[in-house]
Amino acid sequence: MTISKVLNQIDEDLPNSIDRLFELLKIKSISTDHAYKSECKKAADWLVSDLRTMGFDANRRDTSGHPMVVGHSKGTGPHVMFYGHYDVQPADPLELWDSPPFEPKLEETKKGKVIRARGAADDKGQLMTFVEACRAWKKIHGKLPVQVSMFFEGEEESGSPSLVPFMKANASELKSDIALICDTGLYGEETPAIVTMLRGLVKIEVQITGPSRDLHSGMYGGISINPIRILTKILSGLHDIDGHITLPKFYDGVHDLSNELKTQWENLNFDHSHFLNEVDLSVPAGEIEYSPLEMIWSRPTCDVNGISGGYQGEGFKTVLPSKASAKISFRLVGDQEPVKIIESLKTYIEKNLPEDCSVDYIEETPSKATHMSTTNVAFEKARQALSLEWPKEAAFVGCGGSIPIAGHFKEILDTDAMLIGFGKDDDQIHSPNEKYDLSSFHRGIRSWARILDQLARD
Amino acid sequence: MTISKVLNQIDEDLPNSIDRLFELLKIKSISTDHAYKSECKKAADWLVSDLRTMGFDANRRDTSGHPMVVGHSKGTGPHVMFYGHYDVQPADPLELWDSPPFEPKLEETKKGKVIRARGAADDKGQLMTFVEACRAWKKIHGKLPVQVSMFFEGEEESGSPSLVPFMKANASELKSDIALICDTGLYGEETPAIVTMLRGLVKIEVQITGPSRDLHSGMYGGISINPIRILTKILSGLHDIDGHITLPKFYDGVHDLSNELKTQWENLNFDHSHFLNEVDLSVPAGEIEYSPLEMIWSRPTCDVNGISGGYQGEGFKTVLPSKASAKISFRLVGDQEPVKIIESLKTYIEKNLPEDCSVDYIEETPSKATHMSTTNVAFEKARQALSLEWPKEAAFVGCGGSIPIAGHFKEILDTDAMLIGFGKDDDQIHSPNEKYDLSSFHRGIRSWARILDQLARD
Repeated sequence: MTISKVLNQIDEDLPNSIDRLFELLKIKSISTDHAYKSECKKAADWLVSDLRTMGFDANRRDTSGHPMVVGHSKGTGPHVMFYGHYDVQPADPLELWDSPPFEPKLEETKKGKVIRARGAADDKGQLMTFVEACRAWKKIHGKLPVQVSMFFEGEEESGSPSLVPFMKANASELKSDIALICDTGLYGEETPAIVTMLRGLVKIEVQITGPSRDLHSGMYGGISINPIRILTKILSGLHDIDGHITLPKFYDGVHDLSNELKTQWENLNFDHSHFLNEVDLSVPAGEIEYSPLEMIWSRPTCDVNGISGGYQGEGFKTVLPSKASAKISFRLVGDQEPVKIIESLKTYIEKNLPEDCSVDYIEETPSKATHMSTTNVAFEKARQALSLEWPKEAAFVGCGGSIPIAGHFKEILDTDAMLIGFGKDDDQIHSPNEKYDLSSFHRGIRSWARILDQLARD
Repeated sequence: MTISKVLNQIDEDLPNSIDRLFELLKIKSISTDHAYKSECKKAADWLVSDLRTMGFDANRRDTSGHPMVVGHSKGTGPHVMFYGHYDVQPADPLELWDSPPFEPKLEETKKGKVIRARGAADDKGQLMTFVEACRAWKKIHGKLPVQVSMFFEGEEESGSPSLVPFMKANASELKSDIALICDTGLYGEETPAIVTMLRGLVKIEVQITGPSRDLHSGMYGGISINPIRILTKILSGLHDIDGHITLPKFYDGVHDLSNELKTQWENLNFDHSHFLNEVDLSVPAGEIEYSPLEMIWSRPTCDVNGISGGYQGEGFKTVLPSKASAKISFRLVGDQEPVKIIESLKTYIEKNLPEDCSVDYIEETPSKATHMSTTNVAFEKARQALSLEWPKEAAFVGCGGSIPIAGHFKEILDTDAMLIGFGKDDDQIHSPNEKYDLSSFHRGIRSWARILDQLARD
């Protein structure tokens, strides 16, 4: 079967692909707001019906939250499972949109045509790149080159409460040879990227208590311990002057990059000045001896995401507070063990706690870093397919954040996941005036067609 | 003129003194709540009328807020000006009161009889100790032993917005040889105290800005500076391990105690363990080489009264905040100069600020420490008069907080003020079930009678 006819079909059918995406974008599937529950169901039903037109055995699968959509095609060869989400972020503040968020339109901009709507990039537009690729394959060859399943979620923007239970309950149905996830971006403007490293996350809130109640600093100032002073002392000791994290054994399990990946990343020519300038910064603030790209992709971090204590309103109140607290998070890499890091933090805090203070912790379930086994041949095949489609060669990249679904595929289904997406940094996802470049949509469809083609080969 | 007849008169008239105080306590003169504006006026009118029955030339003096009351008696000898305030704190939460806050009553307790009502101690009961002392003098001798004026404020519990303008506008009328202020307490249970040192106060809010907007720690964590990290680093450097404040030249103008005062304070046998135990603390947290009493009365402090940055709600949000801020206050003593301290703080902060961060400040009008010239003979006379009335010898003490009116007398009218009061630590001022010991009221009246007697002597 030749890929060129499929690509031609994609090019010719692009206006219809856009129309279909617009239909989906018009549905206000805001998952976090209960008022839009029926809209979420409507989006799920639209997808079921669209998959069925392509011959998929597709169904809406209700949960206690918003429904999942699962569809299977018959076919031979390797089994791929595609994941995307049909729910979107709320659109407010509405007054900041230049056109209504749920009335999608094609817009000419300086950088080319864009699809403007809530969900255009995150994730309806990306989800539909894969659906349209399959549609073109079916149209030309009557069947898909590999066995394809699709799995769409409607709660990604509201914490995915039903996801893990659903995956566990339907593990044998959802298992495949490789999972494909389309919810990430290109590297820069023209370099396709496959995310192979995701950082883990440890979140812990630390609350220091000094006096048993808030005190007046006129009466007690000088004699009473101030928990804010203790907390700041503790927090200030977490980093040395060169950006290293000082907790004992913190770096256990952190590995340096392989030479191969190092070379690939150097070739990406990451413009950290531009990246930082956009938020009015200029100096990379991580461990001094590592490159900026390593700082955000492959090095662990420790950050205080929130700090709180005493009087925080307008003006002043001369209070010596009883309590002060900080929300601390660690981004983990390699084989760092969340449990050991939490233990090391607690030991450090308690060692630095004066006799008159006590400490309480609130923890959230931590996650380890995720590393894809790029030895799975699918990774190299996808990289080659993407390199054929885009002006620049595709790269294996890292991702500083965590995309839980990738870990779930690994942990629950023991399936490697390839995170491939076509978003751009200026897509304004989660913000007003979200857009998806028409070129991302068009080339995205073509990319998946090529990847399916490659995966079908021996 | 003999004092003994005056003291007898005070003892005999005590039931009527209580009745008069109860009349005043029934008036709901809550200054901070606009709904009680007419009640404040009523309290002022009640005082004017009471002073007039004693032959004072007394008037209500309206301001843009609540009225002042000023009264003058004719007389010879030194001119004393008495200050008190007739407004009270709000009484809520009402459900925590065991009896209605504006229905004063005499109550028998384990520690003796108490007057229970909002304002019983702060400050109506204390104010009336002086008025009743004058009434008894008049009754017995037909006139007062010295020239007495009275000055009552109705905005003390709501920031005294009219006080300074009124004092400035009426400076020549309000000037006297010595000011008497009754709004403080005994030292412990039985030691009368004259406050001769009040700490000054510098308040400054420091806001550090890093990136120009809040960032996602997945995307920027590791490469972006976190202003909370910078702020905690800066704050943690303000104290050394022994409780000293590290700002250069901070201690300029801080004097050690005179040997005389040192001995007086040692004789007070301050029970710091008890003081700290009440708020579940045990270790004095100030400069290690100073006594606990010095820590709260005669040593300067630096405290963070509030700290804020990033996400502070429930749960976690992996944000790298754009801003972090702290409300810092310094209690000043001796001749410390607020301006120089603010300057030293700013220099220190800016020296420790990374290239990528900026800092903004919000300052409030600072105040220097106030020291009364105890060389004014009135101080020693009052000390002797108080020592005659109470079981223990009176002491010159410090006060860790600031009582602005004392500074105003000094700065606006160049008049020394003696702060003498009969409150106790368990009076629960500003709280539900406020009380004033009947013994404080009774002995307070007798104390003022004795002080007036002493002040009249050569």
